[in-house]
Amino acid sequence: MAESWVIMVTAQTPTNIAVIKYWGKRDEKLILPVNDSISVTLDPVHLCTTTTVAVSPSFAQDRMWLNGKEISLSGGRYQNCLREIRARACDVEDKERGIKISKKDWEKLHVHIASYNNFPTAAGLASSAAGFACLVFALAKLMNAKEDNSELSAIARQGSGSACRSLFGGFVKWKMGKVEDGSDSLAVQVVDEKHWDDLVIIIAVVSSRQKETSSTTGMRETVETSLLLQHRAKEIVPKRIIQMEEAIKNRDFASFAHLTCADSNQFHAVCLDTCPPIFYMNDTSHRIISCVEKWNRSVGTPQVAYTFDAGPNAVLIAHNRKAAAQLLQKLLFYFPPNSDTELNSYVLGDKSILKDAGIEDLKDVEALPPPPEIKDAPRYKGDVSYFICTRPGRGPVLLSDESQALLSPETGLPK
Amino acid sequence: MAESWVIMVTAQTPTNIAVIKYWGKRDEKLILPVNDSISVTLDPVHLCTTTTVAVSPSFAQDRMWLNGKEISLSGGRYQNCLREIRARACDVEDKERGIKISKKDWEKLHVHIASYNNFPTAAGLASSAAGFACLVFALAKLMNAKEDNSELSAIARQGSGSACRSLFGGFVKWKMGKVEDGSDSLAVQVVDEKHWDDLVIIIAVVSSRQKETSSTTGMRETVETSLLLQHRAKEIVPKRIIQMEEAIKNRDFASFAHLTCADSNQFHAVCLDTCPPIFYMNDTSHRIISCVEKWNRSVGTPQVAYTFDAGPNAVLIAHNRKAAAQLLQKLLFYFPPNSDTELNSYVLGDKSILKDAGIEDLKDVEALPPPPEIKDAPRYKGDVSYFICTRPGRGPVLLSDESQALLSPETGLPK
Repeated sequence: MAESWVIMVTAQTPTNIAVIKYWGKRDEKLILPVNDSISVTLDPVHLCTTTTVAVSPSFAQDRMWLNGKEISLSGGRYQNCLREIRARACDVEDKERGIKISKKDWEKLHVHIASYNNFPTAAGLASSAAGFACLVFALAKLMNAKEDNSELSAIARQGSGSACRSLFGGFVKWKMGKVEDGSDSLAVQVVDEKHWDDLVIIIAVVSSRQKETSSTTGMRETVETSLLLQHRAKEIVPKRIIQMEEAIKNRDFASFAHLTCADSNQFHAVCLDTCPPIFYMNDTSHRIISCVEKWNRSVGTPQVAYTFDAGPNAVLIAHNRKAAAQLLQKLLFYFPPNSDTELNSYVLGDKSILKDAGIEDLKDVEALPPPPEIKDAPRYKGDVSYFICTRPGRGPVLLSDESQALLSPETGLPK
Repeated sequence: MAESWVIMVTAQTPTNIAVIKYWGKRDEKLILPVNDSISVTLDPVHLCTTTTVAVSPSFAQDRMWLNGKEISLSGGRYQNCLREIRARACDVEDKERGIKISKKDWEKLHVHIASYNNFPTAAGLASSAAGFACLVFALAKLMNAKEDNSELSAIARQGSGSACRSLFGGFVKWKMGKVEDGSDSLAVQVVDEKHWDDLVIIIAVVSSRQKETSSTTGMRETVETSLLLQHRAKEIVPKRIIQMEEAIKNRDFASFAHLTCADSNQFHAVCLDTCPPIFYMNDTSHRIISCVEKWNRSVGTPQVAYTFDAGPNAVLIAHNRKAAAQLLQKLLFYFPPNSDTELNSYVLGDKSILKDAGIEDLKDVEALPPPPEIKDAPRYKGDVSYFICTRPGRGPVLLSDESQALLSPETGLPK
């Protein structure tokens, strides 16, 4: 064991957005929620975390780099994940290179971790969910842990609650569980990403001057002060979870949209019922909701669902490509880019939706007609930073191509 | 009865702002609420309705003028009030002029009504509350109805729910009542306006581009769709009403402020939990809340309470004149007037608060230091239309000076 070999694993894990919201912990330390939640996994092509984990007898300590910058691993959340995976490590053998790590060696070996988000960390797009899911998944593979993804999700949960839902593609349920040690508080797949593959997701990253309350602090204050939260968690969410699973299984978009919007609004309602009140949505968020609500009502059946997490960004789920193209037209009408912004850097992700919408350049954006369902529609230039077009996507995968690794196979340091 | 005499009465009635909110009717027709509410009456010197009602055998029909413009009386709300007061009319005699109207004559006689608000009707400052209270109070005096103000409040309630609370000064409770005909759904005074006379009220009239949902429509939709409203009405408000009455009786500002802010936020939370969601507060409202919350926390004990009705305007209740002067400094720092606005038309009402704050002109506003409790405090010029400084005030009064009448004593038409 005195050699200087490095063994590495690289994994890619998606982010996810809840359609029935997680807000409030019943156990702060184990990160156990007050209700079940359901999420849709976003296509990792557009939004994902890539993590390389490496082990070598030459590493003096556990180290981590996030987006190229070294960060501390001393926080309890990282320590929880490292401890739990180490406890499940098994024998690993690389016969070709003549390397053998036995189960008990893992306690003494140190790891290097490098993680990279293919989207701005600060944009408020659940980077910690994808990050902890990827860390746990990659470490589990490196250490040859035999646990399935649900069992791994209960570990990722101890890094960041919503991370447990990033262990699967498609639609995912986080079961709150009952037992005190949290072992049954884990994620299960509701349906995979192929089940409902005509959905299109457009994310509006909203400009904000405000510094938001962190979700950890926010949900603690809601649990401590909101008189509405317990009623929501105990009486309302359990019924919604059953209805949402039905809607997803039946691809019933009307019910799906109704439940998604209502639950997003109720989550923000309990934030407002917190003392002091928490505002995550701003006037731009409100305008996006109003745009969607008016359109849905003018058509008669829902075309688009909206949901907002702990920030002003809108996640809009369109029934199909046609609805998505129409939605993008409306959004670009209301929220054209600043004059110094190019279309190419204003609409990111799956640009084919832009083509479907008949928009090739900024002149097409300028020429968009006002949505007929709204009279005197004003335009709010610059109120959205950019849009990302994406779709429901797959769960975690291992990347076998070594060129995608973020650590050098020789030194175990960032490339 | 063929003569052309005119008998007139002029009354002045205050507006009021709820500190425990009314939101949701259990009976739309009788306007019966789903919970009790408590309000503070605002000083009529700054915000009131003046109404003159006249009767003459020469009037061919009931007519009404609001702020000088004739409006229709055919609406059910006006008809309810007219019918209920007529049913309680008694003999009226003016011996000097030799006029006698007997109880039964009132059914055949027509009335003229002229009403005037000393504040902008469109500002969203509960003009209908003061208006219906004044209409009912003035008609009752004209027709010599023997009912006390609580009994009259049950009639005003049928014009506009919150109008019932404008029949008293000080702090007022609207008891939701139990009986089906609504006769016990009426207002009672908690304490008069002298009981807690060091409170100062500053209203921020917030500029808004949005057209708001009317409160009638909004509360109907909340009753029909919010899953949180019934829990609020049945489980939360009854306890808050008891606590609020205690706080007011004991002049316990800390409890008063906590309950006022929490209940305003919860009312807006149930609006957000409505489908489609209702947003009355905007980014400016949120910034005012944040300003107050941060200040209150930095001092350690609440200096100011905030409450918002069905619109973005903030009603801020300061503990005393000193707190009010400090509050006004902070508000003018964050929300200075547009450069074309004069201070005199930007801070209305009791201008002595401005003097206490050491502000004499716009240069003083420009020179205000940023509040120390906030770092990097930005200024939002033009986001507030104007401020009104006022205080808790008295209930309805009769104006005996004929020069204050809005109708001509000869013709019974607007002066």
